Amino acid sequence: MSSGSEHAAPSPEIITAVEAADVRFPTSLHLDGSDAMNPEPDYSAAYVTIRTSGGGAGYGLAFTVGRGNDVEVAAVRALTPLVVGLPVEEVLADPRAFSQRLTGDSQLRWLGPNKGVIHMAAAAVVNAVWDLHGRRAGKPVWQLLSELSPEQLVDLVDFRYLHDALTRDEALEILRRAEPGRAERTARLLAHGVPAYTTTPGWLGYSDEKLVRLAKEAVAEGFPQIKLKVGADLADDVRRLRLAREAVGPDIRIALDANQAWGVQEAILWMRQLAPYDPYWIEEPTSPDEILGHATIRRAISPLKVATGEHVHNQVMFKQMLQAGSLDVLQLDASRTAGVTENVAILLLAAKYKVPVCPHAGGVGLCEMVQHLAMFDYVAVSGGTDGRVIEYVDHLHEHFTDPVRIRDGHYLAPTAPGLSAEMYPESVARHRYPDGPVWTGMAA
Amino acid sequence: MSSGSEHAAPSPEIITAVEAADVRFPTSLHLDGSDAMNPEPDYSAAYVTIRTSGGGAGYGLAFTVGRGNDVEVAAVRALTPLVVGLPVEEVLADPRAFSQRLTGDSQLRWLGPNKGVIHMAAAAVVNAVWDLHGRRAGKPVWQLLSELSPEQLVDLVDFRYLHDALTRDEALEILRRAEPGRAERTARLLAHGVPAYTTTPGWLGYSDEKLVRLAKEAVAEGFPQIKLKVGADLADDVRRLRLAREAVGPDIRIALDANQAWGVQEAILWMRQLAPYDPYWIEEPTSPDEILGHATIRRAISPLKVATGEHVHNQVMFKQMLQAGSLDVLQLDASRTAGVTENVAILLLAAKYKVPVCPHAGGVGLCEMVQHLAMFDYVAVSGGTDGRVIEYVDHLHEHFTDPVRIRDGHYLAPTAPGLSAEMYPESVARHRYPDGPVWTGMAA
Repeated sequence: MSSGSEHAAPSPEIITAVEAADVRFPTSLHLDGSDAMNPEPDYSAAYVTIRTSGGGAGYGLAFTVGRGNDVEVAAVRALTPLVVGLPVEEVLADPRAFSQRLTGDSQLRWLGPNKGVIHMAAAAVVNAVWDLHGRRAGKPVWQLLSELSPEQLVDLVDFRYLHDALTRDEALEILRRAEPGRAERTARLLAHGVPAYTTTPGWLGYSDEKLVRLAKEAVAEGFPQIKLKVGADLADDVRRLRLAREAVGPDIRIALDANQAWGVQEAILWMRQLAPYDPYWIEEPTSPDEILGHATIRRAISPLKVATGEHVHNQVMFKQMLQAGSLDVLQLDASRTAGVTENVAILLLAAKYKVPVCPHAGGVGLCEMVQHLAMFDYVAVSGGTDGRVIEYVDHLHEHFTDPVRIRDGHYLAPTAPGLSAEMYPESVARHRYPDGPVWTGMAA
Repeated sequence: MSSGSEHAAPSPEIITAVEAADVRFPTSLHLDGSDAMNPEPDYSAAYVTIRTSGGGAGYGLAFTVGRGNDVEVAAVRALTPLVVGLPVEEVLADPRAFSQRLTGDSQLRWLGPNKGVIHMAAAAVVNAVWDLHGRRAGKPVWQLLSELSPEQLVDLVDFRYLHDALTRDEALEILRRAEPGRAERTARLLAHGVPAYTTTPGWLGYSDEKLVRLAKEAVAEGFPQIKLKVGADLADDVRRLRLAREAVGPDIRIALDANQAWGVQEAILWMRQLAPYDPYWIEEPTSPDEILGHATIRRAISPLKVATGEHVHNQVMFKQMLQAGSLDVLQLDASRTAGVTENVAILLLAAKYKVPVCPHAGGVGLCEMVQHLAMFDYVAVSGGTDGRVIEYVDHLHEHFTDPVRIRDGHYLAPTAPGLSAEMYPESVARHRYPDGPVWTGMAA
């Protein structure tokens, strides 16, 4: 209804739409991305566009591996009524309240709580709002976060279930300690970027010859670390790791990734067979829910490192893994937990326990999004890059308007405003499932 | 295509359809079911019907509290292609393989894994198959399970992530120890049922007067235990617990349920204020993901008991809670974990750690389904009822064709074949969301 008053305040800019698209890439045709638990993924995204009455837009996504991406889209649609109509400035002024609105809805939270499909949908929406925030501020999100005060940053954190591991005062102290060096690290970041490692050589579906060739290429390109998928067959794993070690020499780190294939004892026995070839870390040795199991494995295979996180579903799980000593390396994900806002809490938890964060990436748009978190961590939280590397996979970047840039084994800092999650409209249209031409063409 | 051969084998009976309906009851109108985290639930179900080429049918459901029930239905539909076309006898002969087919699909498992929307959808389908199994065998599912041999029962269990807490041999030993008493306990069960407690008096939305009246009625009806919701306001909780204690006297157990409202320290402080009124257990004092937090609370408030489970998302989480000493009471749920099959594993884990199982119920159809699990536990696993009570809430049973029967504070054993999860077609049609007459009438 229009008001007749001459003195009516100008109506505030509101969020007018949350659009969700089912976008899938037929990556299973080439076995890119194949591992012990994901033999044939079709990298996919529940791709979210938020629109405002002022003509603004923000982009975010939840990554999936194919079937079920429609369920993720349905979950975004279930969140939509909680978002449409909200004043933009109110949302951007209190990201914690916005995140709690999405994850705390008294009926929808039954579907999690704070886990699985509904939590990943919240991630897609939260990330789209951070993208919008960066665009309005004219800054990439890593910079936007890095310029917030310690007080503003701790205000992003929902401490309800964290107090016993991290208090607000401790979080403030971590951020204040890093404050004096922010400017210097920002300059260094803009000049050199942050270190990366590559998973490109090591997919299970690749031949030995392809593995060796890609491993050598990775070294030539300046990566200090590569990663191999393991866990399907022990003899294969020993042979592949030996070949990779011969290909890259003794100084390049080789991480291993079992993608949850093992039970606790099996992980320990398997890693003892692989230890002679000096692997750097074992990632996802068992169920991602295994707080106690990861701690048992870590104690048994030390000094080999244990890494996990891409399926760890929220900050309460990460908190316990840190409390229990389950991790040498924390691998947060851009869209498994509830997006940028919850990831700020996870970075603070990791800093408290002095565990380096090496984000999970690859997939669709994960490299683009997590680089902002790792760069914020470097500038304003942990203040270092020791032991910190971002995963890199050279798939599907061509579909993004602000793709990652890699130089000498480093992610260069994005300078475009936002979270780098926007895809080209043509890419979205072509890969829309099931009616985009890429899919209708395959069916024909 | 029809074969022309006279000697073709008869084609086997197959599953021809998995139908999923969005069924919702407008319970929020009366604040039935209100608690600290669920102020206004509309009890709902993603209701599943499996049909076979032989004209058979099985019924199951995943319970939700309203919004998002459509996402649950979408998840059931995503599982459907994995089920339609399977030979019925093959599915019934190896329930573990069927469950792994649903929870291990290499693309769909990304949405969990083994948690949230997609895992609850698996529960609905798995439960419908067990219902079908019972109907074909002419037995209620509690009896069907109780007549399986120890070997057949351990074959239901996926030990991949359980070995470090429970081996196949230990599970066999538990079941063999209980085997000699099965017949006697079955007779006792058929005569007397198993003990129940009631949550009916204690919803947060009820007035003090209604609380006191319902508490007295519960005692008069023979319930040895009632339950109150707490966690929204400490002064209210103290007053309500005092009133309830005065109403029921010193001999009736009063359980409390905070529905995840607190952090770890807050739970301990709050319970110290309530301890003078002799509560029996505190249920869901904090996040359901809190393996370590529940253990900390339990140590701090002993001898008060700690209970949780309705949001504990799979057997790996329950395993760790038992390993860490987080629980005095394990509250499994019919449709949070992947249905009957995974619940057999959880019952065996609980028996190994000598923790009594008191199933979560209420909602829609949960009482109907969990009674089968508790009765199987009594007859063939734990072999006792000490400290074991099934939750009972007197809502919505009239919509089920084989509703629970309560006598003298006990669940009487169902004798109709199946899992008691079938609803009347008229109930489904009337409450279908958003187009059933109950909902279109409210909108009008």
